Amino acid sequence: MGTSTYELRCRECGKTWGNQPRSICEDCFSPLEITYDYDSLRPRISRELFASRAPNIWRYRELLPLPAGFQPSLPVGFTPLVGAPRLGAKIGSRRLLIKNDAVCLPTLSFKDRVVAVALANARSFGFDTVACSSTGNLANSVAAQAAREGLKAWIFIPSDLEPAKILGTQVFGAELVRINGSYDHVNRLCSQIADEPLSGERGWGFVNVNLRPYYAEGSKTVGYEIAEQLGWRLPDNIVVPMAGGSLITKIKKAFDELILLGLVDPKPVKFFGAQASGCSPISTAIKQYSSEIEPQRPKTIARSLAIGNPADGHYALRAITKSGGWAEDVSDPEVVSGIQLLAEAEGIFTETAGGVTVGTARKLIQQDRILPDETTVLCITGNGLKTTDVLADQYQAETPIAPKLAEFEAYLAAKAGALPAAVAAASTAAFA
Amino acid sequence: MGTSTYELRCRECGKTWGNQPRSICEDCFSPLEITYDYDSLRPRISRELFASRAPNIWRYRELLPLPAGFQPSLPVGFTPLVGAPRLGAKIGSRRLLIKNDAVCLPTLSFKDRVVAVALANARSFGFDTVACSSTGNLANSVAAQAAREGLKAWIFIPSDLEPAKILGTQVFGAELVRINGSYDHVNRLCSQIADEPLSGERGWGFVNVNLRPYYAEGSKTVGYEIAEQLGWRLPDNIVVPMAGGSLITKIKKAFDELILLGLVDPKPVKFFGAQASGCSPISTAIKQYSSEIEPQRPKTIARSLAIGNPADGHYALRAITKSGGWAEDVSDPEVVSGIQLLAEAEGIFTETAGGVTVGTARKLIQQDRILPDETTVLCITGNGLKTTDVLADQYQAETPIAPKLAEFEAYLAAKAGALPAAVAAASTAAFA
Repeated sequence: MGTSTYELRCRECGKTWGNQPRSICEDCFSPLEITYDYDSLRPRISRELFASRAPNIWRYRELLPLPAGFQPSLPVGFTPLVGAPRLGAKIGSRRLLIKNDAVCLPTLSFKDRVVAVALANARSFGFDTVACSSTGNLANSVAAQAAREGLKAWIFIPSDLEPAKILGTQVFGAELVRINGSYDHVNRLCSQIADEPLSGERGWGFVNVNLRPYYAEGSKTVGYEIAEQLGWRLPDNIVVPMAGGSLITKIKKAFDELILLGLVDPKPVKFFGAQASGCSPISTAIKQYSSEIEPQRPKTIARSLAIGNPADGHYALRAITKSGGWAEDVSDPEVVSGIQLLAEAEGIFTETAGGVTVGTARKLIQQDRILPDETTVLCITGNGLKTTDVLADQYQAETPIAPKLAEFEAYLAAKAGALPAAVAAASTAAFA
Repeated sequence: MGTSTYELRCRECGKTWGNQPRSICEDCFSPLEITYDYDSLRPRISRELFASRAPNIWRYRELLPLPAGFQPSLPVGFTPLVGAPRLGAKIGSRRLLIKNDAVCLPTLSFKDRVVAVALANARSFGFDTVACSSTGNLANSVAAQAAREGLKAWIFIPSDLEPAKILGTQVFGAELVRINGSYDHVNRLCSQIADEPLSGERGWGFVNVNLRPYYAEGSKTVGYEIAEQLGWRLPDNIVVPMAGGSLITKIKKAFDELILLGLVDPKPVKFFGAQASGCSPISTAIKQYSSEIEPQRPKTIARSLAIGNPADGHYALRAITKSGGWAEDVSDPEVVSGIQLLAEAEGIFTETAGGVTVGTARKLIQQDRILPDETTVLCITGNGLKTTDVLADQYQAETPIAPKLAEFEAYLAAKAGALPAAVAAASTAAFA
């Protein structure tokens, strides 16, 4: 490990690879991940040390793969963990909490966490251009944080993404390449580009390809924050949306590390995965008690979760089943009603992935897999302003009225059911 | 003042009115505002006390009009104050900072601050329904926070607001009333409804009508945060967008209070107001050295600032001119380029009002009214995802390409100017 406290290690054969932009073991073609020298870290960290620092992900810096001398330029993360009593009453939990990454800094999704850690490493590996394949939130975050850091950004997306996610990438001056195909096609193309640098000696730092092991560690901060916000305790259950499957495995890694380092008391936590039925390779395998993940062709409004061939699906499945958890999936109408339920009950406006999480949690409670008195955290990972299109036909546009008290009285009366609004408005307008 | 440390007082005749849902002095018809017993507060507060509390507006609770026993249910505010070196280099400031309320909790605008304080009082005054007239951001915030608090909400808006702001209100289950007319018409109607309760004995708590003095105090937290984030110092200049004109007066009140209470050293701060040229009643008066504000009929894409008859215009004008500051306004194209400049330079995506602030700051620097080595804070007050429509024609939709390396190479070559993209793609597709 040299002077560093972390390095790349193959998840299967265990071979170590130092620190470099690489995500696959050349020996056994398995994925690499970051491993830490926990023994050297243990005496250097404490609850008090973390709590004494500014409220953002950098407070956990010893547990992240950050190059020597790295100076963060932006606050990222440390999103609210809030009680959700009204939503709990509606879906049957008395101890429900929301981890609200719909308001994550700086671009309103949990992807800000992974991008921040990836860009710290992109810089130290010498890349002046960063890139990604994305279902939308990652695009926004790479484009914004690259702009902030003065890095060039190339973003590859499926051509049918939501307009707000496309515009919310272009505005930062990133190069946006639209691909005819699903995310899985986009991702394969990016792997090819990363392997065969086209421009310059160093090629590009693809945050979720050659920088993936560094990037993925950023997700651990969701777990650290939840534990700290619960008073350095772990919840009984956690419900996490799954696209590539990485997030749920990294929250588990965070909890395991906190136990290993003596920062929380050991305690079983059940992990529950949430998918859209139209793209449910992981939940389908779990529900069929299979350890094989069959790729799917995505067809769902939850486009940020539309990954048919999840890179970390196998590890997500294992984390869930070993914990005694489960996975479920919900239909598109259930996604929409999940968004509305959370907004109306708690004032939190989430994107489609959040609707998936809420809908799945409701289903799991109905199945008695999550019990009412257990402490249950729902991970809300993105903001509803990015996927407004799925709600557009949910609300009727009330006919505008004139700015007159009499018109408003008629409007109220019509609302109360006395008269259709138009008739009521017309009849009072005559006397206004 | 009884047992409370604050109460309503007329800004002109000085008569006090205790605490009640009222915004106008019955004696002289001038606006009421909250006054505090600073002598009793002084020994109870300190920099250390504030800094020891969680990072949200409630850490300044002694300086806000909060009823006895109030328990906040949500973190609000404490948004980043970040250095903006790249933007500074582009517009000519070496010490430029952004106060970034584009990511304010919970609904991504500074209105969350005022609504939080208003709802605390709505509840204690016995209202079960809250309401507002709004140009959009206030609508989102009242709807969300009312949902969270279990209050009913009625929201009145001009019928032509941005779709994201309309949907971002409806999703929380609020009643939305669209009015044919400008914000000034909507606001007049709301004053009438507040005066003549239609439903129930208590009527409704209009956050910006009968609760306005309480509501407005929430804006002071922008000033407290800036001072604390600067290490308990005041900046040389601050640039603030103006709609009704309240925000800039309340930031000044915050700075004055911090000096009065001995929390910062006294120091002159120049206040600069920013408006859109299509709705510039305050900046026009200032540029004409007039103390009279002529109402205007708004015509601008900066709809959140489109208030033609600003309620606090007179006080804003006075705050600016007394400080030695100035006001400017910018055209719609300058608003759009201000949004793009901030996004490309700093990775912050703001709404039209933020474009107004950036464009105005650039103009003020060009005029040498703001000097390069002065510490200058720009108040960015809302999020770009709410006004994407103004950018829609700024970016061309690149033709999607197939997920093949050869197609991407052709795309890159075309970008470099060798061939139009379609031709290049077609020619390589034939060989792919």
